[in-house]
Amino acid sequence: MNNELYSVGVDIGGTNTDVGLVAPAGKIVDTFRLSTQAYPDVNPYVSDLCEGIRKMLSDNQITQIAGIGIGAPNAHFPTGSIDNAPNLPWTGKVFLADLLERRSGYKAKLDNDANAAAYGEMIYGGARNMRNFIMMTLGTGVGSGIVVDGKVVYGSTGFAGELGHAILVPGGRPCKCGRQGCLEEYASARGIIKNFWYLAAGKQYQSPLLDMKKEEIGCRLIGKNAEQGDALCRDTIKYTGDLLGIALANAVAFSSPEAIFLMGGPLNLPGLFEEIQASFDRNLLTSYRGTVTLQRSHLPANKVAILGAASLAVVV
Amino acid sequence: MNNELYSVGVDIGGTNTDVGLVAPAGKIVDTFRLSTQAYPDVNPYVSDLCEGIRKMLSDNQITQIAGIGIGAPNAHFPTGSIDNAPNLPWTGKVFLADLLERRSGYKAKLDNDANAAAYGEMIYGGARNMRNFIMMTLGTGVGSGIVVDGKVVYGSTGFAGELGHAILVPGGRPCKCGRQGCLEEYASARGIIKNFWYLAAGKQYQSPLLDMKKEEIGCRLIGKNAEQGDALCRDTIKYTGDLLGIALANAVAFSSPEAIFLMGGPLNLPGLFEEIQASFDRNLLTSYRGTVTLQRSHLPANKVAILGAASLAVVV
Repeated sequence: MNNELYSVGVDIGGTNTDVGLVAPAGKIVDTFRLSTQAYPDVNPYVSDLCEGIRKMLSDNQITQIAGIGIGAPNAHFPTGSIDNAPNLPWTGKVFLADLLERRSGYKAKLDNDANAAAYGEMIYGGARNMRNFIMMTLGTGVGSGIVVDGKVVYGSTGFAGELGHAILVPGGRPCKCGRQGCLEEYASARGIIKNFWYLAAGKQYQSPLLDMKKEEIGCRLIGKNAEQGDALCRDTIKYTGDLLGIALANAVAFSSPEAIFLMGGPLNLPGLFEEIQASFDRNLLTSYRGTVTLQRSHLPANKVAILGAASLAVVV
Repeated sequence: MNNELYSVGVDIGGTNTDVGLVAPAGKIVDTFRLSTQAYPDVNPYVSDLCEGIRKMLSDNQITQIAGIGIGAPNAHFPTGSIDNAPNLPWTGKVFLADLLERRSGYKAKLDNDANAAAYGEMIYGGARNMRNFIMMTLGTGVGSGIVVDGKVVYGSTGFAGELGHAILVPGGRPCKCGRQGCLEEYASARGIIKNFWYLAAGKQYQSPLLDMKKEEIGCRLIGKNAEQGDALCRDTIKYTGDLLGIALANAVAFSSPEAIFLMGGPLNLPGLFEEIQASFDRNLLTSYRGTVTLQRSHLPANKVAILGAASLAVVV
């Protein structure tokens, strides 16, 4: 680990790539942005990325860095490749870490967003002194980065830590992965909306949302109405928290972490964190009680992607 | 790791303690037995155990060993202690590894049966070249030893790897741990009998077992009748396999092992292994397909306890 040097974090999204220069203590001192979708070919993308990084370092008079860390969808850490990412312009297997390393001259490491977030928490956030913890990212999907004995678990394939696709409800909702009852179908933004409709179908609720078009119902609206006392929206949040609490208690039975960190948009739902905590407490095996905390990520939501990516260069 | 020396394996059960001298390649060359329940005080127990080990080594002209490994219920590896084991005569916390180490002069390591079995598979069995695998033990309970990157996962408490108490069916059967829907309630010997009665209550079956007393129904009888074509017994095995397959597929989503090894009495039920395999294949996330095998433990059932314990001395 080398955390006395600056590092560069690259957060690759379908639309844009955000790049940041991160000081040893975790402050993002400079950033720039590339349009990911403007590069159907990865080679000019890597050239412009390297050029941008060189300029950023020179502007800030930085001559040495720990390396470049990249967070990307469908990333495979052991090979440093992005594999068939459906929302990126590059098809097939792209060995981005190698490409960037050769063109930039700096060490480059690539991982998926959830693992990068786990590294970010470990280097700059609430897990700084922890050897065993889990990072759960809630959003479009549900991702996880599992740290055992100070290291992210990759397993034999490099694809360990897919807790969003652990089956929480046997025989439950069909998941887009082709199976049934995955956590993601109940705890992602999409899943929470499904929880709303599931509850609405099961009981008579008086809710103005039931008069709206189906496509208008989103997490933000559910949150807003829950705040105003809407019973259906409140129950949706409780139901989501109940299930997530079970899933997290199950994760503890696996690796006995010191903490589980949570991040992502759905955590803005009023009371969701508290419902998760209550269900987690109810469903945790007695022998683990008092040994593990649930915490929100200590990293600012708008910085975690760059900090997570940058920490990859520091830690691995 | 020192696997060029002999080691001693101590398997502590509620009734007896079985001790074996294990050659480097995994052959048990000598054994002796103590009555665990004859020792209400642990000190004379340790004295007699040491004396027995000394005699066994001398009888076999062994002057140097890798150490002594102990498998015991309620064992806590980090402290080398047995903590309030309900079926052992010693109450409270017994620091058996330390006691044995001081009295014998040999390194002593203590762990629970499932972790010991995982080490046994790693040193003497089917996991010899594996860095990532899981051992599942089915019996009175359901235990697990999880190996990540060549090491058993202990977590922050030392009690990681309690997959028998991962909740498989939210809101399901009450478990003796005080929670609901734990895997153990569906896949232990007790759980399988509950599966039998659950199915019997849900559908009209013609089975001679339904005319018997409730306490007469056990796994062996279910197995025997399944072999003779009894539909209720066959369905019980299929139901058990279906649920276990989901639980094992979930474990893969956690640590992406190369293999999951299974051991224990219930695996003698005809067709159970095949049903687990079929459900596992159906419920495994696509990205893991072809990367992980289900296997029966390669160690003989009557030797795994001593071999597992002995391997603790070799590996840790």
